[in-house]
Amino acid sequence: MKLISVLGSTGSIGTNTLRVTSSFPDAFGVVGLAGGRNVAVLADQVEATRPRIASCADEDSSRQLQSLLRHRGYPMRATSFVHGEEGVIEVGCHPAATMVVSAITGAAGLLPSYRALEHGKSLALANKETLVMAGELMMEQARKRGVEILPVDSEHNAIHQCLRSARRPEIRRLILTASGGPFRDTPKEKFAAITREEALNHPTWRMGKKITIDSATLMNKGLEVIEATWLFGVTPDQVEVAVHPQSVVHSMVEFVDGSLLAQLGPTDMRIPIQYALTYPERWQGTLPSLDLLQMCRLEFLRPDREKFQCLNLAYRALRRGGTAPAVLNAANEVAVESFLGNGIGFDEISRIIEAVLEAHAPGEASSLGTILEADAWARRQAAGLAARAHSGAH
Amino acid sequence: MKLISVLGSTGSIGTNTLRVTSSFPDAFGVVGLAGGRNVAVLADQVEATRPRIASCADEDSSRQLQSLLRHRGYPMRATSFVHGEEGVIEVGCHPAATMVVSAITGAAGLLPSYRALEHGKSLALANKETLVMAGELMMEQARKRGVEILPVDSEHNAIHQCLRSARRPEIRRLILTASGGPFRDTPKEKFAAITREEALNHPTWRMGKKITIDSATLMNKGLEVIEATWLFGVTPDQVEVAVHPQSVVHSMVEFVDGSLLAQLGPTDMRIPIQYALTYPERWQGTLPSLDLLQMCRLEFLRPDREKFQCLNLAYRALRRGGTAPAVLNAANEVAVESFLGNGIGFDEISRIIEAVLEAHAPGEASSLGTILEADAWARRQAAGLAARAHSGAH
Repeated sequence: MKLISVLGSTGSIGTNTLRVTSSFPDAFGVVGLAGGRNVAVLADQVEATRPRIASCADEDSSRQLQSLLRHRGYPMRATSFVHGEEGVIEVGCHPAATMVVSAITGAAGLLPSYRALEHGKSLALANKETLVMAGELMMEQARKRGVEILPVDSEHNAIHQCLRSARRPEIRRLILTASGGPFRDTPKEKFAAITREEALNHPTWRMGKKITIDSATLMNKGLEVIEATWLFGVTPDQVEVAVHPQSVVHSMVEFVDGSLLAQLGPTDMRIPIQYALTYPERWQGTLPSLDLLQMCRLEFLRPDREKFQCLNLAYRALRRGGTAPAVLNAANEVAVESFLGNGIGFDEISRIIEAVLEAHAPGEASSLGTILEADAWARRQAAGLAARAHSGAH
Repeated sequence: MKLISVLGSTGSIGTNTLRVTSSFPDAFGVVGLAGGRNVAVLADQVEATRPRIASCADEDSSRQLQSLLRHRGYPMRATSFVHGEEGVIEVGCHPAATMVVSAITGAAGLLPSYRALEHGKSLALANKETLVMAGELMMEQARKRGVEILPVDSEHNAIHQCLRSARRPEIRRLILTASGGPFRDTPKEKFAAITREEALNHPTWRMGKKITIDSATLMNKGLEVIEATWLFGVTPDQVEVAVHPQSVVHSMVEFVDGSLLAQLGPTDMRIPIQYALTYPERWQGTLPSLDLLQMCRLEFLRPDREKFQCLNLAYRALRRGGTAPAVLNAANEVAVESFLGNGIGFDEISRIIEAVLEAHAPGEASSLGTILEADAWARRQAAGLAARAHSGAH
């Protein structure tokens, strides 16, 4: 039996993870759940899985959760209740867990993921910021502990599948596919007028808000490019992006002998999640097949890097190296949050990130301390720029 | 150094094989060449590779070859010259060879391929008739000798690549792609009037005549379906065909967890050949990359089985089992030859095969003798039907 802790259990990846584990009740056990403030959903999950430990965002939510569960007659002694950043880490490091699904959005996912590796857990990684910010440290830690980092992101999961039994020198390039987001055909002049609702309307995937905006700016793809260099040990030049509006091909690998392998599937996150959880095996599940007619026509186009500056900025940060990717990521998080709060225009997102990146003198990303410092600095810078853009616009 | 014998060296696969081996002169040595009657090409190949043994179709061609080489100052004692069916087998079984590329077209490829396996050679198999006729015997022999059968056909090669590190129970289905041939959009009423030249004009691949006609009738795909069941140990229901006019995706595998892997590449046979020769490694060669723009649009359609009866007949023969696939193959060879000689119409090909298949009471394909007997019987039947169709038409 695989014993699993899920960090970010009430989010999109978290709930899909629990759908997968519950469809193989004899094979998976849930050791720990870390949710946020969605106490109602978390209560249901605790009832259904009876984890040994459950964490909420803060003390208040945890109290609410416990009172809800007590009210329903839940055997309270089965679970210990924790909260906050430390609570998430406790869930990820619980001695009974052998695998941790890291699905907290944003930079907040870094520390719990790193601690889980330190404790020898294999990691099903959905949080891409972890590798963007601290790729070197993470990969080093995984090597040292002899544990796997299995990507849950559909693109990296696809590449992982294509690379099975391949050696690194056999890779010519990785091709990450991108849906192109809702603004693939929108002229750049109209970017300033894009509303929150338009940006949240992703054409092919249902995901959380932050990642949906990142998909609309292509920053999501930029972060994935950075993540891919760490996960698969390739150079920035070896990672390309192809716009593929149908989102059927989830990514591809070209080998030195001219062959390409592509992974395809329905746009259902349970497929990459189940792959990561059952690796190195594949299990027959209840997951849907791809209909041949659904893929009757597949297109691949070059991304418009002039229009989608965020993709360019990600490559720039990647080539600068050190703390630059962490700064890129932090500035992006602040800018996206500001856009979602109607504080800035859609076109301001890339401008703020670029300004912060240009003001940053990258240092070595040699410790979590240095990285988190750069992250905090970038957030302050970006918040200042966002406030200025907001007041300028009103 | 890998020491290789090439059976069918002057054909399309054979010449491409020698292009691959010559691009890695330190890694590959050519032990033996078996050509046909194209003495001029064979002489060039012998000069370039200095094999220990070279075979021609018959004594006459062999004499011509030797006189040509002597005339050019070739060191005649470097090579022993043989001919005929036995010559091919000698080349395939030469003690110095560790790998045999089996690229003779048609049923004639069976015996040399089988003998090579018996002598413990690993087999790069381009001759699909071998597995269609004697799949069970071949796979059994390979298991017994502990040698690999590596498919060179672009479709099976693609599936082999997709299946690396997969276990058989993880396969849900194999999807063989077909260009659809030149008559994909031709209405069935016009099939009777199709000329030899029209049928030989394949839209995406340059190949020999027999296989080009088989591509036009979709019998090629039918034979591949049968071959795939043997190579990959799956049932007929697990093999599907998808028409894919761009010939960029060479085939796909769907796994039980809902994931699909596809292999893509330029339509250049050197890619699957090199893959088979270098397996389990991949080597950086001079082979072309696939241009992203070349695959800007990919289509997948269901084949029209009503129009392309040959595909239906292949599934029928496969389900009947035993000697039925050998009979299907033999009848097809005779019918195609008759069509190429302007003896029968294009639409007669499937009719002749169906009549022969229906007249056959399949026995067990338990020995080469039984299989070759069924093959000979089917050829006589098909020849009779072709002669009747010819005289009826004139």
